[in-house]
Amino acid sequence: MTENSGFVVDRETHDKLVALRRDFHRYAETGWQEFRSASKIVTELLRLGWQVEYGPDVIDADTRMGVPDEGILSDAEDRAISQGADADLVAQMSGGFTGAVATWDTGKPGPTIGFRFDIDANDLHESTNDSHFPASEGFASINDGAMHGCGHDGHTSMGLVLAAVLAKRGEDFSGRVKLIFQPAEEGVRGAQSMVSAGVVDDVDIFIATHLGTGPELGEVVCGAKNHFATTKFDVDFTGQAAHAGVEPEAGRNALVAAATATVNLYAMTRHSGGDSRVNVGTLSAGEGRNVIARTAKLRVETRGRTSAVNEYLFDRAQKIVAGASTMYDVDATVTKVGEALGADPSAELCDFLHEQFSLVEGVETIHNTIGGGGSDDANTMITRVKDRGGLGAYMVIGTTLPSGHHTEKFDIDEISLDIGLATMVNAVINAGNFTITSQ
Amino acid sequence: MTENSGFVVDRETHDKLVALRRDFHRYAETGWQEFRSASKIVTELLRLGWQVEYGPDVIDADTRMGVPDEGILSDAEDRAISQGADADLVAQMSGGFTGAVATWDTGKPGPTIGFRFDIDANDLHESTNDSHFPASEGFASINDGAMHGCGHDGHTSMGLVLAAVLAKRGEDFSGRVKLIFQPAEEGVRGAQSMVSAGVVDDVDIFIATHLGTGPELGEVVCGAKNHFATTKFDVDFTGQAAHAGVEPEAGRNALVAAATATVNLYAMTRHSGGDSRVNVGTLSAGEGRNVIARTAKLRVETRGRTSAVNEYLFDRAQKIVAGASTMYDVDATVTKVGEALGADPSAELCDFLHEQFSLVEGVETIHNTIGGGGSDDANTMITRVKDRGGLGAYMVIGTTLPSGHHTEKFDIDEISLDIGLATMVNAVINAGNFTITSQ
Amino acid sequence: MTENSGFVVDRETHDKLVALRRDFHRYAETGWQEFRSASKIVTELLRLGWQVEYGPDVIDADTRMGVPDEGILSDAEDRAISQGADADLVAQMSGGFTGAVATWDTGKPGPTIGFRFDIDANDLHESTNDSHFPASEGFASINDGAMHGCGHDGHTSMGLVLAAVLAKRGEDFSGRVKLIFQPAEEGVRGAQSMVSAGVVDDVDIFIATHLGTGPELGEVVCGAKNHFATTKFDVDFTGQAAHAGVEPEAGRNALVAAATATVNLYAMTRHSGGDSRVNVGTLSAGEGRNVIARTAKLRVETRGRTSAVNEYLFDRAQKIVAGASTMYDVDATVTKVGEALGADPSAELCDFLHEQFSLVEGVETIHNTIGGGGSDDANTMITRVKDRGGLGAYMVIGTTLPSGHHTEKFDIDEISLDIGLATMVNAVINAGNFTITSQ
Amino acid sequence: MTENSGFVVDRETHDKLVALRRDFHRYAETGWQEFRSASKIVTELLRLGWQVEYGPDVIDADTRMGVPDEGILSDAEDRAISQGADADLVAQMSGGFTGAVATWDTGKPGPTIGFRFDIDANDLHESTNDSHFPASEGFASINDGAMHGCGHDGHTSMGLVLAAVLAKRGEDFSGRVKLIFQPAEEGVRGAQSMVSAGVVDDVDIFIATHLGTGPELGEVVCGAKNHFATTKFDVDFTGQAAHAGVEPEAGRNALVAAATATVNLYAMTRHSGGDSRVNVGTLSAGEGRNVIARTAKLRVETRGRTSAVNEYLFDRAQKIVAGASTMYDVDATVTKVGEALGADPSAELCDFLHEQFSLVEGVETIHNTIGGGGSDDANTMITRVKDRGGLGAYMVIGTTLPSGHHTEKFDIDEISLDIGLATMVNAVINAGNFTITSQ
Repeated sequence: MTENSGFVVDRETHDKLVALRRDFHRYAETGWQEFRSASKIVTELLRLGWQVEYGPDVIDADTRMGVPDEGILSDAEDRAISQGADADLVAQMSGGFTGAVATWDTGKPGPTIGFRFDIDANDLHESTNDSHFPASEGFASINDGAMHGCGHDGHTSMGLVLAAVLAKRGEDFSGRVKLIFQPAEEGVRGAQSMVSAGVVDDVDIFIATHLGTGPELGEVVCGAKNHFATTKFDVDFTGQAAHAGVEPEAGRNALVAAATATVNLYAMTRHSGGDSRVNVGTLSAGEGRNVIARTAKLRVETRGRTSAVNEYLFDRAQKIVAGASTMYDVDATVTKVGEALGADPSAELCDFLHEQFSLVEGVETIHNTIGGGGSDDANTMITRVKDRGGLGAYMVIGTTLPSGHHTEKFDIDEISLDIGLATMVNAVINAGNFTITSQ
Repeated sequence: MTENSGFVVDRETHDKLVALRRDFHRYAETGWQEFRSASKIVTELLRLGWQVEYGPDVIDADTRMGVPDEGILSDAEDRAISQGADADLVAQMSGGFTGAVATWDTGKPGPTIGFRFDIDANDLHESTNDSHFPASEGFASINDGAMHGCGHDGHTSMGLVLAAVLAKRGEDFSGRVKLIFQPAEEGVRGAQSMVSAGVVDDVDIFIATHLGTGPELGEVVCGAKNHFATTKFDVDFTGQAAHAGVEPEAGRNALVAAATATVNLYAMTRHSGGDSRVNVGTLSAGEGRNVIARTAKLRVETRGRTSAVNEYLFDRAQKIVAGASTMYDVDATVTKVGEALGADPSAELCDFLHEQFSLVEGVETIHNTIGGGGSDDANTMITRVKDRGGLGAYMVIGTTLPSGHHTEKFDIDEISLDIGLATMVNAVINAGNFTITSQ
Repeated sequence: MTENSGFVVDRETHDKLVALRRDFHRYAETGWQEFRSASKIVTELLRLGWQVEYGPDVIDADTRMGVPDEGILSDAEDRAISQGADADLVAQMSGGFTGAVATWDTGKPGPTIGFRFDIDANDLHESTNDSHFPASEGFASINDGAMHGCGHDGHTSMGLVLAAVLAKRGEDFSGRVKLIFQPAEEGVRGAQSMVSAGVVDDVDIFIATHLGTGPELGEVVCGAKNHFATTKFDVDFTGQAAHAGVEPEAGRNALVAAATATVNLYAMTRHSGGDSRVNVGTLSAGEGRNVIARTAKLRVETRGRTSAVNEYLFDRAQKIVAGASTMYDVDATVTKVGEALGADPSAELCDFLHEQFSLVEGVETIHNTIGGGGSDDANTMITRVKDRGGLGAYMVIGTTLPSGHHTEKFDIDEISLDIGLATMVNAVINAGNFTITSQ
Repeated sequence: MTENSGFVVDRETHDKLVALRRDFHRYAETGWQEFRSASKIVTELLRLGWQVEYGPDVIDADTRMGVPDEGILSDAEDRAISQGADADLVAQMSGGFTGAVATWDTGKPGPTIGFRFDIDANDLHESTNDSHFPASEGFASINDGAMHGCGHDGHTSMGLVLAAVLAKRGEDFSGRVKLIFQPAEEGVRGAQSMVSAGVVDDVDIFIATHLGTGPELGEVVCGAKNHFATTKFDVDFTGQAAHAGVEPEAGRNALVAAATATVNLYAMTRHSGGDSRVNVGTLSAGEGRNVIARTAKLRVETRGRTSAVNEYLFDRAQKIVAGASTMYDVDATVTKVGEALGADPSAELCDFLHEQFSLVEGVETIHNTIGGGGSDDANTMITRVKDRGGLGAYMVIGTTLPSGHHTEKFDIDEISLDIGLATMVNAVINAGNFTITSQ
């Protein structure tokens, strides 16, 4: 059913993957601030002849979550330009519309295959220790407080080299290919806004890809499952300050409201639909020891094995907050700052990816699936594609890690980029046959 | 200013006080069920020539609190009749309208002086031990679960003998006298309904009297203060049961709502207007170990040094309950089952009572005031009288106690009845002078 | 590998199954009080020629949980005798040692196959409505408050008829058979004490059987999984009473300790090892509205997808209780009243049972497994058998239910007894081949 | 009994009061950092011929509370020297021993009269608005974050001018005078360490003085009462971080421990010994939204109408914290950072001060007492003096305030300095007579 031999990454292509990955690594940008990254992506895609949309055309303004304040965004735009971004493109993405979608239409009948590449960095201070490869090789992040500690630099690099490879091999595949460069995956803030903009509505086969997250170099996973659906939200309580000794009754205590909300958030009844989590990660309240606290802020997340379980918890959480607000006569606002649905991979697509992996040099072990306690808003895209009748899977390319994800010494083995790229090229070339026979 | 010599209780009068007290003791009836007691009071007052009102005329139906269920009241009516109550009177007080007010109008100018006598017994099983005087003398309560463990039998006796004495001495005083026989003081349930019926609206000088509560025989107190204002209320939460293992999300948990309400009720901010108390005395919730609890019930009280402080707490408590209800998506109802205001004695009236005490045989020590942590809804009457420009005080007649108030071996020294009666007679006789000079 | 044809239940055998089931149903006895049931079981097994152990020989006294008070047990013994139990046997099981184990040793080489039959009834008042089959047929429980609402009457009946069938067919099988009649499965109180007595230590193949729990008549399940491991426990808090108005500081408040323990029990962090549950089913605290509560009692359960998860929760729960006790300076005791481990079925045994089911008349659908939110302490036995190298499975015989388990109108379709019995007979006859080839 | 005419503040003395007050105001220093202030005080007292002790001789190291970190103290020392402090004196007070005690012994028989002057400023940013008198007159604080917002600059000034006046009038009084310059009254951190050093152990008549706090200019108070006894403490919880989705059970949650401690701290049972307060003023916990929180910090205070009530609450609070720590398996430390006892004024001393006030020009209204909801650790000194048989009172000198205590525009009317000084001089001169007659 598939071709006998797969795509082989040559030296030149490997060097290109590495060079791009290191460039994005050096100029790391966190969520909604990826102005230089997105500018470079758009420029390169246009140069390769892809049809490119970006900015508000692919990012729905109303469903973005956890967008930084204007001042921060404005500073990020200036920095991006000073680091080589195209000022016109930055202007078109101003305000944090830092995503792009590239389409290649072969004009031949066939499915639309979409790939998601997340492009944002983490809120981390990268290690400057010589034992850290990016530091010793001189491509550690120069943007303080931003570091590619999750491998998205590699994702972005694979996306652009995939674009370059396909641009030369239009004859070898049919249907359409969409490359989706998503901002703000960290905090699961970005995918919903691209879904709302309709970016995946015409995708028949959707593949999200992640480097690392468990398996070693040489191991790959067709379709991870058991990602939690999750909602991230902030709660702000506002009461009234008063002297705690002289006139306590004049106060309305935001701190005790936050404390009782916290305990009761953890106490929410569980759901038979699957395992779940609740966490109040931070609580900050009060102005002084002898003052009834006027303000309190919680940073919270719920997670559920299914979107329904998570939805149940978030609904319950809002009632807990409302109740605490009533109890202590304080105002409370709940602000959603991130959300990812849960999704299981399509079994047929997993089988298809298994075949593509088997054609790739360096792949030693192919897992059908792995579980896990994390979340990724690629699942929001997968859910949308499946809801419309398409197939989706979350592919994992193993890489041996010197230090875990989201740590200051995180690094990937750059050989994993070759594996990921080759698998994607195979998938595109073989997608036509797959879809025709299996759907 | 006052006459030189006070009223002296002779042997016959003393015997009458004792006989009546023991009769009421033997046929103890708890709040809103005092059908025999009230019947006997009304019959005796009418016999003595007083103008008597009783039943719904002196008890406002809408502001009664903590009234027992109909079945209990009906049984109490039957029992009262079987124990000698007048069936017609019981019928007129049917449903728990067990109060009476007697008025004597001299026709001469002068103030209206009112006395409050509470007539209900406690929810206690009286000791049958020979060391307990009522048991060894054969006048212990024959009504199981009802016992005069607070001295109200003595109060009632003093009220009736006062009526008898004054009926013979109409020449010796002026103005008007009102004798107020109040049901359901225990649980502070009855006074409000008599206030609402207007019973004290024409009273210029109001005197509540209590036997015991601290001082020994021979000690008396002109005007106790620092009684707490208090509200007694029940909270009922109703949710939805569900199997705790199989489908917990189908439940709405009344038990955890009650638990979080409880902790937060205790946590209510205090008030600079004075000391306060909160107590959740009982909590009963749930149907089975593996079932999400459908129901929960709390019995609660708030207390404040002033009526305003207590009102603040009760208002806050209702918000706590509403918040817990919102948190766990359960219904909640708050039912007020008792309430007493707080009141300080009128200084002029204390001075007046000091003089009356000084004329009484057996009085050795006269305290101007004492404090305390208890509550009495006579203060609701005092508040009303003072609000309308009158004077009020809560007089205490000490008596040496073998066992504390509200215990199964509580008993009074019957000599204290003489002291109380004599003081009241003096007050009536001297009230004319007092009021004329001091108001 | 297995014989070509399975055991067929003839009319006489069916009638015997029905008669026994209805007898046990009529004389329903709850956990640790099954004196008549156990007496009848022992008598019948001895009659059939089985080697029988019972009472303290098969029930370890120290690891029994949730045993009723002596008075209750004593009354149950009297009732059992009055309802036909053998007085000598009852005396030997006195104090609640109401279990029995029957062994048949063929003397031929082969595995030891064990079956668990739980014999206790539920704390239910059985419906007397004519629409309820046991009521209209006249075999509804005559023991008020005890009802076979879970099918254990059928389990017991199948166990005794299995004993009868095998007693006649000793030639047809090899190895040994153990029939384990367990008391007090409801509340998961009994299995541990039989495991502690060593009852399953020599069992190679262990089969627990349950009628109902989901599948319809004609459906069967080889090995249910995802039963929760669970611990049932009571918490008693004891403080010091005090007048809540007069001297609150003299009290130590058991009610608020129980309330804060409750909220925090629900708030326990979850475990990545699998889904879990916590429930505080009942809370009962306090003596009166104006008294600082001296006592409080919670009835609690934890559940976890694995024994480790449940153990984690129970450990955390004990810390929550200890902390609440420290907070409010009250004493607290935690009493374990039930416990079941979690266990997955052995895959080889499921395959074997699949074959046995396929030989049974009336079996239409064979499920390899089903999940579920309940618990059964048969899993404690399965865990023990597997830990010692044996195989275990929890077999389910579907039956169409007019009303769910643990309801007052629960009933089984008696045809399901035939299916269960036939499967067990097949299993015994074919066990020799199975074990020889598969172990 | 007292002299007929009191001390009159002349123009030169008034100017001196004003000049000193403004100097201390300009160089405001907060608690334990008053190196320049104390240096200037010591230098001046030595110049005037008083016997002076300072540094560790009058400050017990072990009972100081709320002392800042070494780095902060070291910076404060440097700043003090740069602002004119004597480097040798600063060295002797190094580490925050910034108190001084001056003694004048007349050699004549008579009581020892002691005055407490607190010298520290508040953690406030002083207003630079022209409507603020210190700003428009150019003596606003030049030390950012430190401002005399409570009048201690005036207290210090009165203390030094009192020293100057008495140094010239040694003939006019008998016995001994002690002037106690106390650091760190804000946060009630300093008095205990001076009491522990024995500073008030030989004082017969102890007078604390405060400007402002309610009464207007011309009003004075002989002895304020109902200051709350108070304890200020920090609670630090330390647990273990873990990923809240992947492995929550590996964490130990300091945030939820802090939250449940908070609610239960507010829920502590009250005390019949008098009104009380609890406040958790600030709560800061956690590291990130998806991380089980490792750390949490509370800033708490308890207050009681009496020292016993406050002690009860602080004892209960420690149990609440210990219980929360047990519940969530986290470490907890309670650090006392401030404490003041409660004390009522000695009635005889109030009478004496009434007489002294009556001799002072500008005094229009003399209140015997006022109540209040605040706290002052001068009461720790008063308690010590009274416990040893002496007399103590907390004198208040009213002053009309443009803005409340502890606000950025607080200011005193400098005429109040004259009133305070004159009263103290009178007290010293008349103390001999007073003590001889009244003790």
